[in-house]
Amino acid sequence: MKMAGAAVGGLAIGAVGGYSIMPPKETIVTNEVEVEVEVPQEVPEYPWTYEKLDVEEVKNRAYNAYFESGCSYGAFEAIIGGLKEKVGFPYTSIPTKMAVYGKGGTVGWGTLCGAINGAIMAMNLVSSDLSPVNELVGEYTETAYPTWKPAVAVKTDEDLPTSEAGSPLCHVSVTKWCEASGFGSGSIERKERCGRLTAEVAGRAAEMLNAVTDGNFVPVFQDAVSVTTCNGCHGDAGPIANVHAKSDCAQCHTDEPHETS
Amino acid sequence: MKMAGAAVGGLAIGAVGGYSIMPPKETIVTNEVEVEVEVPQEVPEYPWTYEKLDVEEVKNRAYNAYFESGCSYGAFEAIIGGLKEKVGFPYTSIPTKMAVYGKGGTVGWGTLCGAINGAIMAMNLVSSDLSPVNELVGEYTETAYPTWKPAVAVKTDEDLPTSEAGSPLCHVSVTKWCEASGFGSGSIERKERCGRLTAEVAGRAAEMLNAVTDGNFVPVFQDAVSVTTCNGCHGDAGPIANVHAKSDCAQCHTDEPHETS
Repeated sequence: MKMAGAAVGGLAIGAVGGYSIMPPKETIVTNEVEVEVEVPQEVPEYPWTYEKLDVEEVKNRAYNAYFESGCSYGAFEAIIGGLKEKVGFPYTSIPTKMAVYGKGGTVGWGTLCGAINGAIMAMNLVSSDLSPVNELVGEYTETAYPTWKPAVAVKTDEDLPTSEAGSPLCHVSVTKWCEASGFGSGSIERKERCGRLTAEVAGRAAEMLNAVTDGNFVPVFQDAVSVTTCNGCHGDAGPIANVHAKSDCAQCHTDEPHETS
Repeated sequence: MKMAGAAVGGLAIGAVGGYSIMPPKETIVTNEVEVEVEVPQEVPEYPWTYEKLDVEEVKNRAYNAYFESGCSYGAFEAIIGGLKEKVGFPYTSIPTKMAVYGKGGTVGWGTLCGAINGAIMAMNLVSSDLSPVNELVGEYTETAYPTWKPAVAVKTDEDLPTSEAGSPLCHVSVTKWCEASGFGSGSIERKERCGRLTAEVAGRAAEMLNAVTDGNFVPVFQDAVSVTTCNGCHGDAGPIANVHAKSDCAQCHTDEPHETS
């Protein structure tokens, strides 16, 4: 849509390039006098340029944002909010509240851990290479959370028991932690645990993006043995070919022993 | 950051409001003459204003985008791309490729169905009310996909068998469809099925957002019976309190009969 400009105060104000007309916030027009006005911002091509973030700052921002609007928002806000401060536009055009939905594994459904979802949403905005995303998901499944502690805790400043999820699923992650720690899923300790986990996941995402920026990102995660074994028959190219996934098969499918050829 | 403007052609060009200086794409400056220039766009407060979309257009856009960059991008691009066309700014500032990561239930991990992830990312951008998001997830678990057919199919124009996932997980959804249809997970029919499913999920998201806009959105999804029953003990407020989730428990936990009090 290309629209003719409207003369205002002897100067043209209009819109080009597919934007609807919206008056500038502040326009001061004079002739031959130096003044301040906003200028148009052209949204850059995808992916947006990342600038290295301080990992500890990302963790603290994620931790505090978790207690504002949950895990997914916490991780997304930690990285994109950091880039808003450090880079400004175009990151200032992203409303980080768009990631709130991921909390509790998608509005409480217990699917993908929201900290992962928010973190990789940010990663995918600054990189079309999905190998760091896969690395973050894989590493999550093998990491004992939480080990990071904030300087000032929101719910409790106790050291908390840790557990490995063996899965990127919120439900598995939370239940395994409840079983390992003895704390209830509705306890302040569980919420504190998820806040710290969100900080660690967002921090690792920033570390990986920093490494990509430095040209020294090296993925090390290997698929679970069961994935390689089971997908030989059940995967896309196998004779059964009824599975399109790479989460550890053995975690859920323990009750189905069968002959393998 | 507030920066002094630089005089150009008798007019000031600078930046205010936290934006870095970036020359406008095209600036034509004259005195007392009507011309076209870009004007600054102030990013509106979250959530962004939604305008009702044509559901069939959303479906077709999602279907075609699926074959470009996968399910999650397909659903996100269908809604946000539609809003870019219909509304323009601020939607034009969102790179929809940021949602590619959700494909295959998060880069192939088989967790949250990517069509859901992309659709609800868009829903959460235009609404802070998560009840339509929950409705979309719940409805997905009970819906037999795919029933929609494109005018021109990409992989095959056959009618395809349908199946209900009973779960928002990609792995469960795909495997149940493979078992119901007899088609392999790597087959062109499975890819066609996921393309059509992406269209349907994005279309329903638009329908729900349209209903919210019209003030007649009414959620009807009820948690699975097992969720209500099991969470009586295992949920956040129960005596065991080791579960923070609401996916159908009985789908996976069929092998663990135990006494209930």
